Amino acid sequence: MESTKHIEILKVNDQNITKKKDYLIVEYPFTILLNDKEIITLLSSPKSLKYLALGFLYSEGYIINISDVKEIQIDKERGKAMVYIEQTKMMAKSLQQKKTITSGSTKGTNLYNAMHDLKPINPKDSIDIKINEITSLIFKFNNSSKLFIDTGGAHSCALATRTEILMFEEDIARHNTFDKIIGRALVNNINFSDKIILTSGRISSEMLLKIAKVNIPVIISVSAPTDLSVKLARELNITLIGFARGERMNIYSNFSNFNF
Amino acid sequence: MESTKHIEILKVNDQNITKKKDYLIVEYPFTILLNDKEIITLLSSPKSLKYLALGFLYSEGYIINISDVKEIQIDKERGKAMVYIEQTKMMAKSLQQKKTITSGSTKGTNLYNAMHDLKPINPKDSIDIKINEITSLIFKFNNSSKLFIDTGGAHSCALATRTEILMFEEDIARHNTFDKIIGRALVNNINFSDKIILTSGRISSEMLLKIAKVNIPVIISVSAPTDLSVKLARELNITLIGFARGERMNIYSNFSNFNF
Repeated sequence: MESTKHIEILKVNDQNITKKKDYLIVEYPFTILLNDKEIITLLSSPKSLKYLALGFLYSEGYIINISDVKEIQIDKERGKAMVYIEQTKMMAKSLQQKKTITSGSTKGTNLYNAMHDLKPINPKDSIDIKINEITSLIFKFNNSSKLFIDTGGAHSCALATRTEILMFEEDIARHNTFDKIIGRALVNNINFSDKIILTSGRISSEMLLKIAKVNIPVIISVSAPTDLSVKLARELNITLIGFARGERMNIYSNFSNFNF
Repeated sequence: MESTKHIEILKVNDQNITKKKDYLIVEYPFTILLNDKEIITLLSSPKSLKYLALGFLYSEGYIINISDVKEIQIDKERGKAMVYIEQTKMMAKSLQQKKTITSGSTKGTNLYNAMHDLKPINPKDSIDIKINEITSLIFKFNNSSKLFIDTGGAHSCALATRTEILMFEEDIARHNTFDKIIGRALVNNINFSDKIILTSGRISSEMLLKIAKVNIPVIISVSAPTDLSVKLARELNITLIGFARGERMNIYSNFSNFNF
């Protein structure tokens, strides 16, 4: 299953119309089942599906510890993930769902309930990242996205240290890229609390809450944050950087970490 | 309730860090109730909320005719729309929901069931739009988006004829902009079948199905379509234009309408 499809289109350029082959991004419906109960169908890109299923279930609160997962089967042909955990570990959430639809690539979740479980980042655990490190990371990040380069229709997300990108994931949907990163990091026992998230997409409150949940202290986006995400970042001591483009960027929280 | 918020940030430019005021886009949770039953909470921009509620309920199939709506109350303070229709008009969908999460600004809907009700556009009813008309519409469209200019974080959608923009809506979420346009056009008894949709966002299968539902024959995006949306556009004879930027664009369907 490929993430792109090669089809014939008409390309218009300065009054000239020519028939050409072009790449389109594939929209792949992917259904996640937990103990045979259907949880959700995501429209996704058909790569890193195991990470997507685990990351989604974890970051949406359906599973509490990744070690609770007894088995996971991916049926690529039928677009299904079958995830099994001990029945006693099934959370109330799995049995009764409240539907909140968010502003971006979207999941059913209740943002405000999520706040109860979150602790602010302790300032001494924060990462003292420098402006030139951000510029350098974003440069590497932007050059990693093959799917975007091919189709112009993909989002990407990365987990990084101050100096290097550790994991990179792409998807048609902004939130899927993040869930793929979370799933992949969980499977590989990566510690989140000294890492940085990079994202191509806008930062909504939902994204911020997911990051807070795994204690990632810094998020950097090429794009814009919303007012709620900035409010949450300030309450939770998460360093939030937006519009990171070359030597330019906006800093929305933890001002005291930067010299100005 | 404003769609933007003015807050203090640090702006970084060529090694200089300065404190400045900047506009952020507001994320506004908006719950839609139909006959006192909670249908969904959308994260939205707090403008045109009546259109958003009606457009969402219509395009998601909760209401069949806009004339079935007996009453609508918007409680801006608490972020709620209370919509009332005759109990006998409540669709099965309102009572039992299947959750599909899509790639963009997203709604709970089942894409594939939706196909059953759709008829392809009759070629004689198609709009024979010209390349220079598209260029001119996109120019007007891009210059209309105040929220994007202020915040860099908004999507927009417009309903247009071949020569002019009739309605323009903005929102934090791509799909909300479309639902606002649909709601506004329905309330104003606008005929869809000789109109054009313009959108700032990517075109997914879900978007295409919503357009097919109201018989709009042409959709033009500044951004990319997915493979499924192109497949559907071709099956339904909808003219699909992507990456419309200045004199350049890609044509994905109805090739015979264009001279090349």
